[in-house]
Amino acid sequence: MKIIDCTIRDGGLMNKWQFDQPMVAAVVEASVGAGVDYIEIGYKASAEYFDPAEYGIWRFSPEAALREVWGNEKVRNRSRLAIMIDIGRFKLEELCPAADSVVSMFRVACYVHQIDEAIATSQHLHQLGYQTTLNIMAVSEADENELEAGLQRIAQNSPALAIYVVDSYGSLSPAACMGLVHHYQRLCPGKAIGFHGHNNQQLALANSLAAMEAGAAFVDASLLGMGRGAGNCHLELLMSQLGANLTQVQGLLRAAELHIAPLQPSLKWGYSLPYALAGMANQHPRRAMAIMDRGESLHESGYLDELLDKVISA
Amino acid sequence: MKIIDCTIRDGGLMNKWQFDQPMVAAVVEASVGAGVDYIEIGYKASAEYFDPAEYGIWRFSPEAALREVWGNEKVRNRSRLAIMIDIGRFKLEELCPAADSVVSMFRVACYVHQIDEAIATSQHLHQLGYQTTLNIMAVSEADENELEAGLQRIAQNSPALAIYVVDSYGSLSPAACMGLVHHYQRLCPGKAIGFHGHNNQQLALANSLAAMEAGAAFVDASLLGMGRGAGNCHLELLMSQLGANLTQVQGLLRAAELHIAPLQPSLKWGYSLPYALAGMANQHPRRAMAIMDRGESLHESGYLDELLDKVISA
Repeated sequence: MKIIDCTIRDGGLMNKWQFDQPMVAAVVEASVGAGVDYIEIGYKASAEYFDPAEYGIWRFSPEAALREVWGNEKVRNRSRLAIMIDIGRFKLEELCPAADSVVSMFRVACYVHQIDEAIATSQHLHQLGYQTTLNIMAVSEADENELEAGLQRIAQNSPALAIYVVDSYGSLSPAACMGLVHHYQRLCPGKAIGFHGHNNQQLALANSLAAMEAGAAFVDASLLGMGRGAGNCHLELLMSQLGANLTQVQGLLRAAELHIAPLQPSLKWGYSLPYALAGMANQHPRRAMAIMDRGESLHESGYLDELLDKVISA
Repeated sequence: MKIIDCTIRDGGLMNKWQFDQPMVAAVVEASVGAGVDYIEIGYKASAEYFDPAEYGIWRFSPEAALREVWGNEKVRNRSRLAIMIDIGRFKLEELCPAADSVVSMFRVACYVHQIDEAIATSQHLHQLGYQTTLNIMAVSEADENELEAGLQRIAQNSPALAIYVVDSYGSLSPAACMGLVHHYQRLCPGKAIGFHGHNNQQLALANSLAAMEAGAAFVDASLLGMGRGAGNCHLELLMSQLGANLTQVQGLLRAAELHIAPLQPSLKWGYSLPYALAGMANQHPRRAMAIMDRGESLHESGYLDELLDKVISA
């Protein structure tokens, strides 16, 4: 069982990765101290696609910045550093060999229609000496046949360590998560299965536990659930549910209070009615995020009425 | 399967039941409209134990007040009205026969050591013509043998319709809830089993779903989870998970936004680190509620250190 702390990487979707170095170092220290297996600090992205004047350093994660928070021996010996890349937003030629990097694992995020590119990317990263996972986003709206064929191609052609079920819209139930983990296991025998939840319906933790019960071996979580929209599975809760005692989770609770909670009033991730509605209706969170950004109510926004019209006209 | 809306009753623990009549009527209308089976509007308590100058009307729930929000035919034909009583805080002689009341069901809340009083109360209420449930609080710290013996006496002597597993401290996992439901079923054959969750570890909904999967036939929930401490299972989410579509939940979403969300900044129920810690450590929420009331951080409060000392000295 491997736990991945994605606090900075997924939380950065709410503030364009404008986290300062001491805050990132504190998250790393707390998670490493709690025995978290992988810490995902950011994305590797090319400055050709994102303006460094607008986006913080963890959108790009240059080796020098990573070494500042992943410098000491104690950290390196206890946990591994993971970085995410999005298909189409990075340049392979900008990545150095694993031997020259503190990064252990690249997580390749893709939609179902990008699976072939993701396989090729994982092959290339493998040649460079990195571990990889393939994180197939928005599985709740994927075409079943396309997903099945894609998973079969992954099983045959990708060296990835784990294939992720990603509940991008926070629309899945625990039972649905178990079903998807079993489905991925059948189609990708020998691969570990991962799960990444979103908390629109307050099920990210329960879905993670259900996925693990079904056999998932990689699970993502973040401190105080910081992440896009309704946020992720809470790392402090997940570790406790997995048997960590108070002595083991105290560092997570302190880091959550000192470094993450102060960001909540401005970043506004977590449960809200617009996010709950998006989850119930299996919708991308962008509409709900715009409502939250503008400080609108559901009533003012017209979002509920739009979705009701869709239901009626369907 | 019966769903009980306990928004006003449990939410009132955060403001001494100071809800105005139009707000309560709006909650009733939304829940009845969504097909909720029972609406629990308050407690029956004696003015001998609570000062009416300090506590709102739903601490006492006089028949006249109940009739104001339970007056119309449409409501009465679609849902039933439930009221809670706490052992030792009401007077049986103050209750009228069911034929003279709009109340259908009394829910008798008790601790394990009060089970015999609760059985006697349920017998008396049954004679008055009411349905009853027995809600055994704080099951997570109950003595196993005392609980088992109590459940056996309930099975033999109480006419109660349902016996509740109450996760007062928000400390149970979905697997533990399933185990408790099965345990209650074995010891109380023929009784329906109920579940009342608290959301300290963001598991109230997942625990409710797990309890139902194990066979629980009564489940409590409240709009936006309003309730003591970390709050309850969210009614709007539970109904959606049970298959209600957007047309069916829209009234709950609107009532949650218009009537419940505005109370959150002052009543402060919902996820917070002090409540999470109380849930992890299987503690009564009173300490965490005091921290929240004073606006303290965990760090300032010393709560985490106290619990760590306990672990170390245990």
